[in-house]
This record gives sequence, C-alpha cells and structure tokens, in this order.
Amino acid sequence: MPRFPEFSQRLNQLAGSVFEKFLPKMREKGADLVKLHIGDSYLPPPYDLPVDPAFREAHPLFNRYCNTMGVPELRAALAEKVAAENRLPVSPNDIMLTCGACNALNISAMGLLEPGDEILVLTPCWPFFLGMVRLAGGVVVEAPFYSRLYEEPDLDIAAYLERFITPKTAALYLNTPNNPSGKVLSRPQLEAVADLVQQHQLWLLSDEAYDGMTFDGREHHSIASLPGMFERTLSIFTFSKVYMFAGLRLGYIAAPEHFLKQLNKMMVHQLYSPSTLSQQMMVDPVRTRESWHRDFVQHCQELRGIASDQLRIDHHRPEGAYYLFFPIDKYLNGRDYWETIDLCLESGVSVAPGGDFGSDFRDYIRICFAGESPDRLQVAVERLNRIFAEHS
Amino acid sequence: MPRFPEFSQRLNQLAGSVFEKFLPKMREKGADLVKLHIGDSYLPPPYDLPVDPAFREAHPLFNRYCNTMGVPELRAALAEKVAAENRLPVSPNDIMLTCGACNALNISAMGLLEPGDEILVLTPCWPFFLGMVRLAGGVVVEAPFYSRLYEEPDLDIAAYLERFITPKTAALYLNTPNNPSGKVLSRPQLEAVADLVQQHQLWLLSDEAYDGMTFDGREHHSIASLPGMFERTLSIFTFSKVYMFAGLRLGYIAAPEHFLKQLNKMMVHQLYSPSTLSQQMMVDPVRTRESWHRDFVQHCQELRGIASDQLRIDHHRPEGAYYLFFPIDKYLNGRDYWETIDLCLESGVSVAPGGDFGSDFRDYIRICFAGESPDRLQVAVERLNRIFAEHS
Repeated sequence: MPRFPEFSQRLNQLAGSVFEKFLPKMREKGADLVKLHIGDSYLPPPYDLPVDPAFREAHPLFNRYCNTMGVPELRAALAEKVAAENRLPVSPNDIMLTCGACNALNISAMGLLEPGDEILVLTPCWPFFLGMVRLAGGVVVEAPFYSRLYEEPDLDIAAYLERFITPKTAALYLNTPNNPSGKVLSRPQLEAVADLVQQHQLWLLSDEAYDGMTFDGREHHSIASLPGMFERTLSIFTFSKVYMFAGLRLGYIAAPEHFLKQLNKMMVHQLYSPSTLSQQMMVDPVRTRESWHRDFVQHCQELRGIASDQLRIDHHRPEGAYYLFFPIDKYLNGRDYWETIDLCLESGVSVAPGGDFGSDFRDYIRICFAGESPDRLQVAVERLNRIFAEHS
Repeated sequence: MPRFPEFSQRLNQLAGSVFEKFLPKMREKGADLVKLHIGDSYLPPPYDLPVDPAFREAHPLFNRYCNTMGVPELRAALAEKVAAENRLPVSPNDIMLTCGACNALNISAMGLLEPGDEILVLTPCWPFFLGMVRLAGGVVVEAPFYSRLYEEPDLDIAAYLERFITPKTAALYLNTPNNPSGKVLSRPQLEAVADLVQQHQLWLLSDEAYDGMTFDGREHHSIASLPGMFERTLSIFTFSKVYMFAGLRLGYIAAPEHFLKQLNKMMVHQLYSPSTLSQQMMVDPVRTRESWHRDFVQHCQELRGIASDQLRIDHHRPEGAYYLFFPIDKYLNGRDYWETIDLCLESGVSVAPGGDFGSDFRDYIRICFAGESPDRLQVAVERLNRIFAEHS
C-alpha cells in the first residue's frame, strides 16, 4: 500500500490559513492595505540590540512575523544555490525555511507517516530521527548500509535493500554525506537507491545536512537531481554544518511547492516560522558562499588527517561529514563497553556511544573532529590511543 | 481517569539524552574535557555578520549549539523576572526556552494528551491551539467563556465550567490576558478556575503570551501563583508581544523542573533548541524590562482608545492584549459574512474571521490595534465604520 504521494491523516486534517484565498486581493491592494488581521506590533523593539544599525535600517521588518514559508530574499538566494550546486529544478517557491534540519525532518516524519507505516532507515544514522519516527507512530526498519559500503563498494544495493521493503513501507530515509560513518554515496549508488524508491512508490527523505562537506575532491550528489526523483523527494539542508551556525537553528527543504504547502501547515502548528532576523542575516552568507566555504571544508579535511592518521584504532577514513565512527570491541582490554566510555570521560574526552546510531552499532563510538581546535583534537586522540591502543 | 501528573505515551517512549548520566563527570572535568561527542565546529562563522563585535566577543559560543533547556544567563534572568512579577516559586532550572509560545503550546499538547483525551478550551481562543490538540489526537471541548465574562462578571465559573468536564478531560487551556477578547481575569476568577482544576485532577496550560499587556492599571495574575497550582501548571510566555520581537521566535515555559525535563525530550525531537544567538540577545532586554515596557503598554492603551472610541460597532472595551473582538451580525446590511470580510479587504482593511477563535464566534471579527501606526489605524477604523455602521 504505497503512501506516496499522500500525506498522513494528521496532516490532512490541519486547516491551511484562511488568508490563503485572500492573498491575491491583499497583494493587489499593496501599501494601501491596513493589516489588522495579524497580532503584531508596528514598532521596533525599544531596547538596545547588538545588531548593526545599517542592517536594521535595510530590514525594517526584522522584528516582525514573516511569511511562514520563509523570507523572500533568502528563498530566492537558496533557490539559486540549490539549482546551481545541487542541480534541482527549483524556483524560490520550492524552498521552505525551517528551524534547522531537525525541524524539517520532524515535520516530514509527522507529515508522511501514518501510525504503523514503516520507514526504511539506512544506518548508521542521525539518532534523533529514530525518535521522530516513533513520535509519528511510525516503525523504523533499519538497514545497515553506509559502513557496509566501505567493505563492499560493489554491493548490489537494490537487491540488498529490497529485502527490507514490505507492503507497509511508506518511505526511505537517506543521508549522504553520512553522519556518523562519513560515507559519501557515488552517483551510481544513488541511482540504485532511486530505482528502488521509484519501483516501490516510496517517499524519499534526503537528509543533506553535510551538503558541501566532502573530502579529497569528491562531489556531493543530491538524489533529487536524478531523473524522476525531484517529484518524490524532500531534500533537507541546514545552516548548522558548512555555515558553522548551529546556534542559529535554521535549515530548509527543497521540494515541489505543493508538498511544501502541506508541510508548512505542520510547521505553523509547531513553531509558526523560523526567526525572521536569522533568515535575513543569512541572505549574504548564502550569496557569498563560494568565497568562504571551501576554506572551512579544507580545514576540516586537515582535521580529519589529524584524527584519522594518529588514531591507532581500525577505522574507515571518512569521505565527508566530520566524524570518525568505528567499533571498539577489539580494544576493550577486558572492560565492558560503558565502563570504557566512562574511562574516556575520566581521561578527559567525551565520545558519542554507537548504539544511538542504529542497533547494529552498539560496539561503535563516534568522535567529531571539527568541534575542537587542532591542538585539543590532538590531545584527545592521544588520550584515546592510551585507553584503546596501548595494550592491544 | 485523570491524566495528571502523567505525560502521554508518545512522550514517555522518547529516550532522554545518553549524556545525562555523564553530566556530573563532564562538569567536574571542566575545561580539560575535549568534547568530541557533539557534531559542531569550533570556529566562528567566517563571513560578515551584522552583529556587534563587542557582543560576539562577550559571547564566543554564539554560533554553537546550546543547552537544550536554554542559555544559562537567560534562564537566570527569566527566573528572576517570573519570581518577582509573576510570583511563581521558580529557580533557573524551572525555566525552559522554546521557539515562541507556539512551540511551547505544541510540545505541551503533544506531551500531555493521549489520543482521545479531552482538553477543556475556554473560548474565544488562539486558533492554532485547536490544530495542535488535533495533531496530538486530542479532543477539543470548547467552553465559551471570556466574552461571556464581560456580560456576566459574576458568573459562577466553577459551576459553569463543571458541565464541560467528563471522565476523559485531561487538561484545561487558559489564556489571560485573552487573545482575542481582551478579557483579563481577576484573582477571584482565577481562583475559581484553580479550584476546578485541582478538584478534577487536571493539567493546567496557562497561556500568558500577553503577560504585562494590561490596561487601566489592571494587574495580570499568573494562575500558577495560587496555592497548589505551580505543581500542576505549565505557564507559557513569549518574546513576541510585550518584547515586540515576534520575528525572534522565542518564548519560555515556567514549571517544575521535572516537568520541563520531560517536555524537553519533545522539543529536542522537533527543533533541538531555540537559537543560541537569539537567547543571548534577549538577556539584557529581560534585565532592563522595567525601563522600557511600560511605555509600550501605555502606547497600546492609546491605540486601544483610537480603535475603541471611534469604532461605531458595539464591542467590549478590551482590558488587555491588543485586539477588539466583536460580532458583526447586526451590521451586515443584507450581505453575508464572507462577502463582508471581502468588502473590508476591498476597502483596504484586513481583519481576522471570528470562527477561527471558536465555533461560537462565526459572526465575529478580530482586529489588532497595535500592528499599524496610529494614523493608519484611524484610516482603517473609518473604513470599517463606512462598511458596517453607515447604513445601520
């Protein structure tokens, strides 16, 4: 029973804005229209704000509610970026701003999954997504995938994933570059996933939080750029990684406008819209992205070198994102797993336990190599080597 | 079958952070701890930002993930404000930041209501809350209330509301100062609601978005300040109204810490946390609130005067918030309701249709008197008078 292109009942029951039908007339009226329908104040905040006065002057509505789909200038800038770099056939109307990729994934899970629906989750994966599926009443079906591709680059992906699909499968959740494994899927690999998704009439959730974060000259391909895929894919991006601004809580979805209008009803009921000011602040960084983002990716590649070259524990060298993810079962030296995590903390290094990323990874740990300066990263790797590698 | 103090199954099934148990040790390690467990970058954004350099220097972590409960300085400032002004027995741990009151209400509905649970919603009410209840699978039971209190100030509230309570009632949703009616509940009126809630073992959702926005010297009382009420109430506030910063998408919940820790699991799965930068920007405005907010409230009282004195349609003079809400059935002059709304738009005034605020208010409209300058407000009122009052 394929769900695509239907949304969940909980989404369908939500009313859209009553103003939708009045919008053409409201636009026509222009500046003459006195807007008494919104609960907002016309005055700017009367207290000191650490915001550039020229910026405030250029954005006089910075403190007010915005279009819940996003600020027009930012949607336009992102549409240009997504069309040029990700090669999706988007106009600004095919872009919706969200409160981080987190919010985009939540409204997608709530909007696509009916209670009892299965979603094929390729693992290891970002832990919170598993909770989001459960919140929506959905059932996670885990397919160990990304780490396996390091071992078996020629895996017959379609045949392998086919086994996990049942009549209840409504969607597939893909994440490349992958957090935590660092795997970056090649175009032929994505084609195999795309074929499967089309053949089984699934929705595709493409989590591209690490868009632009690839190493050794690899290219990130957006699966929605493949033939027939834009029409069934929600492509999800964030300002938290390559933009280095997790503290802004801003992300976006690129997808056909008629999907976004539906998902927007869910967002409006969760948080109304992301911050107007945050969105206005990101217009220039999107437009100037070419001028600054390569340096950061290059720096992350150097950090990967420090971590990967010096860590004396077997692992696959990540192709993208900014994590190492590896099993530690061979290095426990008689201690149990959680004792060892605790020992890492004792030595002054916090690591993320692998079981959060999928049930096949309970022997793994994840470390992020971009969150601390090179010096401190080096200290941490030495501490980990002392715990894991010294006696093995 | 009272739900209080239980949360919904969908909330209970969510795992808390695995790091919770490691926090004491992480704190103990202090600056020596190299944090490799979070996916974040240690560098500041490398592009121009319209943020005061001194502020950036004072808040070096402005671009990074924050504690999902909120930035410590802001929680501390808000706890002081809530203790002093709202008279709730809070410490900073009893404050959780959210992405607007909207997000606070959504996670409360999702966290408290089991599918089939009823929630007693006093109407007229903020429209999106009705959708939130439906999203949670809950059942809205509407009790026409605030507008009625203008007509019957001595209404026996407990006896009246009692009729709407069934064995399935899990919670009551209260909003004073009320959007859209402008009603501000007195302390004795709140005591009646509090008695009912305690007697029936209900959760109380107290929406205080218009905290501080009261006229003619009236005081806003927080119901959680009444005896026995803090222990069963989620008190919800926002930066969108008195702070004049709807575009920041920031709000907060004041409630016992053990409730907030549960609700935080829901928020983390929706959007992780509100913006770090936005929170840091609001610390000073909270601390200096006394110095600026009275002027804005006074100005809104003047705007209320323009709207209420000049509008030639019967209505109750609002005691707080910034709306007029009134029936227009006597003024339709033979036209139907929606035709008339359209005519308002034609004349250059957008108004909010009353049916969104509760099923008893389909003949009403709401106008906001704070969203446009006094001159434009005056023009709008004249336009409305021409449509509604001229021929009646």
